[in-house]
Amino acid sequence: MNAPVDPRFAARVRESFGRQKAMGLIGASLLHVEPGRVEVALPFRDDLTQQKGFIHGGIIGMIADTACGYAAFSLMPADCSLVTVEYKINILAPGRGALVARGEVVKPGRTLTVTRAEVYAQDGTHVATMQQTLMMLAGRPDTIE
Amino acid sequence: MNAPVDPRFAARVRESFGRQKAMGLIGASLLHVEPGRVEVALPFRDDLTQQKGFIHGGIIGMIADTACGYAAFSLMPADCSLVTVEYKINILAPGRGALVARGEVVKPGRTLTVTRAEVYAQDGTHVATMQQTLMMLAGRPDTIE
Amino acid sequence: MNAPVDPRFAARVRESFGRQKAMGLIGASLLHVEPGRVEVALPFRDDLTQQKGFIHGGIIGMIADTACGYAAFSLMPADCSLVTVEYKINILAPGRGALVARGEVVKPGRTLTVTRAEVYAQDGTHVATMQQTLMMLAGRPDTIE
Amino acid sequence: MNAPVDPRFAARVRESFGRQKAMGLIGASLLHVEPGRVEVALPFRDDLTQQKGFIHGGIIGMIADTACGYAAFSLMPADCSLVTVEYKINILAPGRGALVARGEVVKPGRTLTVTRAEVYAQDGTHVATMQQTLMMLAGRPDTIE
Repeated sequence: MNAPVDPRFAARVRESFGRQKAMGLIGASLLHVEPGRVEVALPFRDDLTQQKGFIHGGIIGMIADTACGYAAFSLMPADCSLVTVEYKINILAPGRGALVARGEVVKPGRTLTVTRAEVYAQDGTHVATMQQTLMMLAGRPDTIE
Repeated sequence: MNAPVDPRFAARVRESFGRQKAMGLIGASLLHVEPGRVEVALPFRDDLTQQKGFIHGGIIGMIADTACGYAAFSLMPADCSLVTVEYKINILAPGRGALVARGEVVKPGRTLTVTRAEVYAQDGTHVATMQQTLMMLAGRPDTIE
Repeated sequence: MNAPVDPRFAARVRESFGRQKAMGLIGASLLHVEPGRVEVALPFRDDLTQQKGFIHGGIIGMIADTACGYAAFSLMPADCSLVTVEYKINILAPGRGALVARGEVVKPGRTLTVTRAEVYAQDGTHVATMQQTLMMLAGRPDTIE
Repeated sequence: MNAPVDPRFAARVRESFGRQKAMGLIGASLLHVEPGRVEVALPFRDDLTQQKGFIHGGIIGMIADTACGYAAFSLMPADCSLVTVEYKINILAPGRGALVARGEVVKPGRTLTVTRAEVYAQDGTHVATMQQTLMMLAGRPDTIE
């Protein structure tokens, strides 16, 4: 388990997530925040689907990307922000029903942090796995630019 | 340039894209369809943004994933469907303003097809680059399961 | 833990690994084989290094790719072979000294299997993490083609 | 086409490549160097193969990783070095015969550079495609640490 640099990490993560209008659009919410681990919940909605009626693979990527990003953000100092450098996701099973994305930090770093997320359906199906790289922007607060 | 197996490829791509409710949710549309190349347009909207006011990286992934998938689908026979196996995306610049994702087939195959997408902003900024793998499901039509 | 289809899985993995002349070239050996988990050991050698004196990132990729591939192969039937579809690796720390790559199956499948590897140095440093996709070639034995 | 910051870029790339003992081990050589584009050649050798007699996928990754890295290095200042952050490679066809990896810079950056490589066989077969991220270490010369 990782020790947070900023004792207000959870409030900072929740406040930043609240500013992600894209999460509001798809109906995603923060389920759990601890140092280096964040869970994002996504209830099933018909308007999140692709042509076969499953949750769109890009939306699965959205919640995994966000869970990973906030897992990294939870370990960072208060006055910084971060950007996603890249992510790679394998879709393991069709996204049926509500999903949860569990992001965690694999390797925290001063400049780059590497994270991973697992996405599960309510019935326990392993829906996706992601590996992600983020870059910390030191001294650039996490606010609208 | 690749030769399409199905002469109705463009209608088939447009009809399938039209069933992607997630594309409707984010306001994305099909801009261009040719054999092995598909473009998806995304007008800027405030409800697509992340915490800093840029288009969410996961939404950039959504349109790139979709452009790649339909580039592959355009080369496939009429009675099949496909699933995304995995994709990897590098975010090269913040997503400001309207975006276009250009997907193209790198290597078509009987089982697996490898594709790539480039995402550009209206001012020409190269916003993202994706490499993706898809699997064809032969004899399983592209309809709600 | 996964159940092997072929009770001779360990002998089959060892025999196939023994035919990988590239593993002999770099001095890698099979350390451990169980169903769905394989470890590959790489002693440090000066001729494995890049320009700064660390083990070449591509060689780290080689042992991780191989550990993942044989983790998948251990769960497959006797009369098949497999090919690497793609892999993605993050280098987390310079490769100093001897390395071990631990591959494991994330999701076995009839056609595609998704795996992961972690590479560690002797002093416990987490050197790399890989996510990989493999395709099974049913009825095509694992022999020289 | 990109303009090099360091007019001695080609000599610097060749000198650094010459220090990569791992390239010597597998018999790879620098074929071509221009600003932002580097080609690495790999003659076929039996000791580079995997269990089916094709060039090992990890060795294909090695030459692609190296071609990408030196494409990035060619655009950097004289007093820096760089490290591979991550790479993702799709193997498109078995590696039979001699190979050439062509690396090029997709997006140069102060901290991070994104590159791509295509690997071809002598008969023109497209063998692999890579997307890679590198980090520049400013003020840390490219020498043995």
